Amino acid sequence: MDYYQESLKLHEEKRGKIEIKSKVPVQTKDDLSLAYTPGVAEPCRAIHKNPSDIYKYTNKGNMVAVVSDGSAVLGLGNIGGAAGMPVMEGKAILFKEFADVDAFPICLSTQDTEEIIATVKAIAPTFGGINLEDISAPRCFEIEERLIKELDIPVFHDDQHGTAIVVLAGLINALKLTNRKFEDIRVVLSGVGAAGVAVTKLLIEYGVNPDHVLLSDSKGAIYKGRDNLNAVKESLADITNTACQLGLDHPDCRIGGLAEIMVGADVFIGVSKAGLVTPEMVKSMAKDPIIFAMANPEPEIMPDLAKEAGAAIVATGRSDFPNQINNVLGFPGIFRGVLDAGIRIIDSKIKITAAEAIANYIQNPTSEAIIPSPLDKGVAKAVADAIKNL
Amino acid sequence: MDYYQESLKLHEEKRGKIEIKSKVPVQTKDDLSLAYTPGVAEPCRAIHKNPSDIYKYTNKGNMVAVVSDGSAVLGLGNIGGAAGMPVMEGKAILFKEFADVDAFPICLSTQDTEEIIATVKAIAPTFGGINLEDISAPRCFEIEERLIKELDIPVFHDDQHGTAIVVLAGLINALKLTNRKFEDIRVVLSGVGAAGVAVTKLLIEYGVNPDHVLLSDSKGAIYKGRDNLNAVKESLADITNTACQLGLDHPDCRIGGLAEIMVGADVFIGVSKAGLVTPEMVKSMAKDPIIFAMANPEPEIMPDLAKEAGAAIVATGRSDFPNQINNVLGFPGIFRGVLDAGIRIIDSKIKITAAEAIANYIQNPTSEAIIPSPLDKGVAKAVADAIKNL
Repeated sequence: MDYYQESLKLHEEKRGKIEIKSKVPVQTKDDLSLAYTPGVAEPCRAIHKNPSDIYKYTNKGNMVAVVSDGSAVLGLGNIGGAAGMPVMEGKAILFKEFADVDAFPICLSTQDTEEIIATVKAIAPTFGGINLEDISAPRCFEIEERLIKELDIPVFHDDQHGTAIVVLAGLINALKLTNRKFEDIRVVLSGVGAAGVAVTKLLIEYGVNPDHVLLSDSKGAIYKGRDNLNAVKESLADITNTACQLGLDHPDCRIGGLAEIMVGADVFIGVSKAGLVTPEMVKSMAKDPIIFAMANPEPEIMPDLAKEAGAAIVATGRSDFPNQINNVLGFPGIFRGVLDAGIRIIDSKIKITAAEAIANYIQNPTSEAIIPSPLDKGVAKAVADAIKNL
Repeated sequence: MDYYQESLKLHEEKRGKIEIKSKVPVQTKDDLSLAYTPGVAEPCRAIHKNPSDIYKYTNKGNMVAVVSDGSAVLGLGNIGGAAGMPVMEGKAILFKEFADVDAFPICLSTQDTEEIIATVKAIAPTFGGINLEDISAPRCFEIEERLIKELDIPVFHDDQHGTAIVVLAGLINALKLTNRKFEDIRVVLSGVGAAGVAVTKLLIEYGVNPDHVLLSDSKGAIYKGRDNLNAVKESLADITNTACQLGLDHPDCRIGGLAEIMVGADVFIGVSKAGLVTPEMVKSMAKDPIIFAMANPEPEIMPDLAKEAGAAIVATGRSDFPNQINNVLGFPGIFRGVLDAGIRIIDSKIKITAAEAIANYIQNPTSEAIIPSPLDKGVAKAVADAIKNL
């Protein structure tokens, strides 16, 4: 099937993918008097008296805003909020279909950090949670941090944490299968944007030794004092590749390109660009290496090439290969869980709980099935239940 | 039925009134690949290339934001955006049920004019139209005016224009029944907030002689040079009750309270407060006076009292009396029409077209039926068709 042309047809035929439905009847005079005036005055008065009653009498507690400025949409780059609308509508229906969370696309006409923060704060009364989507780094870090601080509802940047959670889930099973422990592995991570930063932080949170994490951007290995580091990369250079702080000629300091730093690594995680990894680089890694090549739509290395070069386990972002790292395994159940449990901050405990629930959902993981299928709607329930049982 | 308690129960049981639904299936791998990645990239690219394609490939063209800061909700006053949510959800389902327009409540946490304007502009890409709701005067005037100027989608403050349109519709039939012409009538209008201002302007637009329009606020008759006039009232004082500009002792200049200015009037329009009009005041009007007493929930004068005092026709805002002036007769069909016709500005021609369509919907008006029932879903279609045939 030509997904692109068929998708275009589907979108035109249906004129987009979401609609608003009434949960109450509006046929009789009584219907109108209960759903609207005069009856509706009473829930208004109740909320005015007791603001938390908004969760009792409106849909707020089940409504998530999918907010995007369209600055980093799929692999399409900065196409703007309006052009990102089909993705945000798509995200909204995944929320509904996978976890019965109502979600609504908010496509922004601004890409200014302060304006985005002010806008989300201004519209927040309608929503029980905020899912930030496809906002480019490094603005996404400040926007998320500020909104978490300044709002009283959960805020979650899916490109960061959704990806990190599903990567961690896959890695839990991949390490199990190759008899490794998180505290022992050496990890190379290529691409230090929204996803890369969050994956790094969550892996360290989960027990990976930060000294054994090597990050690489388009300029090569990241280390303290390197040129072209933004504030976020600088803070990561403080805790990773730390031997370089003792001198660039220290034997444990790793500098140079991706090929140099991949030598001896157990795990490669790519959230970067097509074709960056060669079979030779895979061969230079430790025995039975694990490759998560998640660049979209073309991975850093194709699975067959990686396997031929000795990879024990390969995951990608694609639906046409085994082990698809797909955020839909995370966000619907995470929001279902935090909305139901009234959790305001999605902290690392919740992220780890979600990752473990996804990993444990597979009873007998194999190298071709370290992670559930994105179509398996039982995953969201398992994730939500795990969060609610915290 | 105790509408207040029953409404509270309904809202709690259903947890509000709206939900988001998918218009496309999400079961198989192909479904996911068309509605979301990778297929969704294609409509994104199309919109990026040709921005107006957003109307072709997304729900924007059928989606209206119901935006409120909760500063003037029903008769409840300034209860804030969050507490106004049940009303905005109610409005959203009326849009859907009466005209198949998707509408979504945007309840604001700010009441600052500039912040409201900036917020609506920032979220506009998602929407095909903006329905402003329950925003108090005089801020509502500037907010609407600026948004009309600065956005490329229709913006409509329903409390102003929706009310004005339905009042005009009722008045068209009321005048027909009492053999009056718009250019001859003398009108007294009590309450110069959002609705009062818009009714005044639309009546003048429709042919009422501005010299024959007398406005009254809580301080009494409005005339040029009076104390306590805001900018909007001042501009109305320039064109109404103009004899006062020749001197307050001019025989045609009308000053004093509502009782004084109602003497000799053909039509009383109340968008003010319960009980302001007495039977004696009705008796002082011209023969066969027309009373639109629309204060909510208690009208300026109860219909039976007005009738006893000689009123030929009485309309109120209430569903338990004949001739209910209910905005639901207007906004669903108006937005259906302008969205379908791609109309960007809802000007007075469109408002008058809508009012005439509502009036003409009643083939044989009587004094107990100058306006259709708010439950008659055929009205919206008639209004939309009239706008589309313009």
